[in-house]
Amino acid sequence: MTLAMDKAALAAFLTRDFPQVAADFALERADPAGVTLRLRVASRHLRPGGTVSGPAMFALADVAMYLAILSRIGPEALAVTTNAAMDFLRKPEAGADLLAETRLLKLGRRLAVGDVLVFSEGKPDPVARAGMTYALPQAPRGG
Amino acid sequence: MTLAMDKAALAAFLTRDFPQVAADFALERADPAGVTLRLRVASRHLRPGGTVSGPAMFALADVAMYLAILSRIGPEALAVTTNAAMDFLRKPEAGADLLAETRLLKLGRRLAVGDVLVFSEGKPDPVARAGMTYALPQAPRGG
Amino acid sequence: MTLAMDKAALAAFLTRDFPQVAADFALERADPAGVTLRLRVASRHLRPGGTVSGPAMFALADVAMYLAILSRIGPEALAVTTNAAMDFLRKPEAGADLLAETRLLKLGRRLAVGDVLVFSEGKPDPVARAGMTYALPQAPRGG
Amino acid sequence: MTLAMDKAALAAFLTRDFPQVAADFALERADPAGVTLRLRVASRHLRPGGTVSGPAMFALADVAMYLAILSRIGPEALAVTTNAAMDFLRKPEAGADLLAETRLLKLGRRLAVGDVLVFSEGKPDPVARAGMTYALPQAPRGG
Repeated sequence: MTLAMDKAALAAFLTRDFPQVAADFALERADPAGVTLRLRVASRHLRPGGTVSGPAMFALADVAMYLAILSRIGPEALAVTTNAAMDFLRKPEAGADLLAETRLLKLGRRLAVGDVLVFSEGKPDPVARAGMTYALPQAPRGG
Repeated sequence: MTLAMDKAALAAFLTRDFPQVAADFALERADPAGVTLRLRVASRHLRPGGTVSGPAMFALADVAMYLAILSRIGPEALAVTTNAAMDFLRKPEAGADLLAETRLLKLGRRLAVGDVLVFSEGKPDPVARAGMTYALPQAPRGG
Repeated sequence: MTLAMDKAALAAFLTRDFPQVAADFALERADPAGVTLRLRVASRHLRPGGTVSGPAMFALADVAMYLAILSRIGPEALAVTTNAAMDFLRKPEAGADLLAETRLLKLGRRLAVGDVLVFSEGKPDPVARAGMTYALPQAPRGG
Repeated sequence: MTLAMDKAALAAFLTRDFPQVAADFALERADPAGVTLRLRVASRHLRPGGTVSGPAMFALADVAMYLAILSRIGPEALAVTTNAAMDFLRKPEAGADLLAETRLLKLGRRLAVGDVLVFSEGKPDPVARAGMTYALPQAPRGG
């Protein structure tokens, strides 16, 4: 399978279309199985006690899955998040970046559904899991 | 029913314990039925097209429900978000603040569960709904 | 607002189109604010200890919201459940029926979203909450 | 890792403690990675059009994850489902059994969290995904 957008194209898209948050993220991997996105944890992402805030983890999961969808359908798309369900499993490590790994479960004509595991870098157990649904634009698509 | 923390106490708690985000929010109401929390929408909350970002709405819902729980159990508590499920229903109005209204469904010994509706100020239909679950500290509590 | 299907029409639809489960349910109310649906609790709905099973509560919430959507868009529709998020809050009363109360949050062209509270009959605190999303058929609809 | 309950012990537990539904299910696999549970699809699980009902898929996911938790903590436990989030992705195949594959994401002192993929037998793409949370009894446990 050829990706509609490869890693370089996705990174350029992120910088251009999400200028408010692009500096928070680094795209580590994009291939047919999904993407790995890094949250460069900084003080603005933290809560008392040094833990990463829930909204920062939500943003990481949302951007990661958005890029995974674009990698398959291309940049003309305007996917909109319609549902997000997150389980917060463990306290993230202080001082470690977070890594999100995506898994696309469905890419339909109207809806895309996937889930994301979020890890503290270097740790095997996930700190959060997110299930995300996106409504897709309804221009006809090949395939 | 008397609240364990009233509106002034909750507002002071927000300022002191969440200095990174307190300026984003204004507590409009706190009574036995729940709280109303305002997100003062600023450019850092926006996405392309002028809409409020998903993570900003998530943060609003999470802080609102957290304050609603504290209003009942007091500031010694350290509630931790364990699950959040959000439906994004409509595009928020550009240039309008968001208001979150909480509803506490369960306040048990170990878990608190509630939901939140988020509105663009002045509009009747919600832009988002969130269901939130919190693990509660297990010190014995009266009542 | 006039309903596309009133209480009698919805009850007839339930009997005709869901013969496997229609006997489990009784429609108590249908008006513009939503529907109230009763689960006639029987031994097949129970788990050890006399509590109503999770799947039985899920079925109640799903059928209730489905009828609430049909009351607005009419019987030609073929809504499909795409997402369900349930919080199980309290153990249902043994020997009591369950009542589901719907709230429709969005009725769009492509998606309908609502939530449901489930009560043991005669008790004020909900035993479960469900958020439900349905994909709608895309025939043009007035209004 | 040694399981607290192996496949035979789990199957016996299912038969004894869930007599109402045990005949619906067959445990295909139980190992440290999780369990595979089969729903023997019968007419009582179907909806108009021959598709498996949402509640039947919910029951399959719930029982599968419950058994996966018991395989780790043993039969004395009384885990209670507190949250379930399901995405219905594709219409199940008519005439095919369903298979649920579990993944345990967290086994804490108080909460267990996992997710489940549901497949029509012989097909590679999942028909549903469920995220499940269980409250655990709080007797001290080793490890």
